Amino acid sequence: LTLVLAESSIERIPPELTGHPSVVAHARRKQKEPCSIILDRSYHHSAMIQLECSKTSKTMSKRGRPDITFHFLLAGLGSPLNREGLLTVLVHTIDDHVIEIDASTRIPKNYDRFIGLLEQLYDQRSVPPGDHPLMRIRRSTISGLLEELKPSMTIVFSTLGKPSTLEDTSPLIASTDNPLVLIGGFAHSHFEESTIKLADYVFSIDRDALDAWIVAGRVIYEYERSIRLPERRLRSP
Amino acid sequence: LTLVLAESSIERIPPELTGHPSVVAHARRKQKEPCSIILDRSYHHSAMIQLECSKTSKTMSKRGRPDITFHFLLAGLGSPLNREGLLTVLVHTIDDHVIEIDASTRIPKNYDRFIGLLEQLYDQRSVPPGDHPLMRIRRSTISGLLEELKPSMTIVFSTLGKPSTLEDTSPLIASTDNPLVLIGGFAHSHFEESTIKLADYVFSIDRDALDAWIVAGRVIYEYERSIRLPERRLRSP
Repeated sequence: LTLVLAESSIERIPPELTGHPSVVAHARRKQKEPCSIILDRSYHHSAMIQLECSKTSKTMSKRGRPDITFHFLLAGLGSPLNREGLLTVLVHTIDDHVIEIDASTRIPKNYDRFIGLLEQLYDQRSVPPGDHPLMRIRRSTISGLLEELKPSMTIVFSTLGKPSTLEDTSPLIASTDNPLVLIGGFAHSHFEESTIKLADYVFSIDRDALDAWIVAGRVIYEYERSIRLPERRLRSP
Repeated sequence: LTLVLAESSIERIPPELTGHPSVVAHARRKQKEPCSIILDRSYHHSAMIQLECSKTSKTMSKRGRPDITFHFLLAGLGSPLNREGLLTVLVHTIDDHVIEIDASTRIPKNYDRFIGLLEQLYDQRSVPPGDHPLMRIRRSTISGLLEELKPSMTIVFSTLGKPSTLEDTSPLIASTDNPLVLIGGFAHSHFEESTIKLADYVFSIDRDALDAWIVAGRVIYEYERSIRLPERRLRSP
């Protein structure tokens, strides 16, 4: 199973905000350049309000929430499916990067350390430095990523999709050998139309928008159930 | 469903560590008294090594991981079950406090803000101040809590329990009107013997120890499935 967190709210501080007093102060505390810091609404809210008034192509409501990716990775990488090497986790960012995460990666449990890792990643393109990086970042759109991966089926979860419980979608996902599931990595608003067009199926599994890490946990668990992984892991210690 | 994160790695900095240089420096940065700060291995690791060498009743490996509770609450409070008012989430701490969290609480998505909230909670016993607090803390052991709640069935998940998939335990949990599930809120080691004794059933759902937030998400989802909540929520928008 390939699970992609798409249009995730991760980007560096955009140039128009690097001079904002709250950003400059935050950068000084972190002893980093403002332009190398990851935009984070919980620290840069006042600066982001300024952006909200300007005309930008991407709505501000989808930006500055790297914590969503953090929780998504904690939900995915600790799963039995990942421990069995049966899960590929990828993060596509709103600024059109793709982050590849090795299945053996132990994401820092501390949020600030995770952000530090992301900042290092944007700087150095792979971490840790050396021949066997655990995380890499490169430029790619979501459609570019799908062209590369060539999944046998692409399923998108969105509140705008066809209502269907996850239990009902699960046999469909398990029926194909290389399924790819897209979950939104942003807090509000919806996928871009161009992302939706890539889907074979778009499903809505709840009447409310659910947190990305909750959807990810459930998709993974349903997939494990459908391949009888829980039984198999208990039988072979 | 009542879900209790038990023996969670939350406590204030113990007196023997308040003078440690790393703790004093951290407290100064936060502009707080060392004794009012929550012990956190990601900031106080060097101080904790000192405790490891002294004889204390609780093993150090179970201490200083408030992030586990953070991720547990994010997994629980955002679930459809909680939105329906059908979930009670409680946190029992290793220093024998119980934290009650109102179902409508929006936990800060930023970790440092969550820790700030915990510190305020230990100071003021309830937050926000006023007549309608969303979180309260009081002294209680886990057995004291269960005497109060009088669940109709108590299920503990532990790698030392009887191997059983969550799918197989789910009908049992759903068969009773007031089930209580205990999940460990610590990173390593096991429940105290006194906690295990409170259980009607102890189950192991995987051959490895799984993260508390992953187990919580799965228990909640299985419970939702067993009461057909996903279908019902999709049918009644």
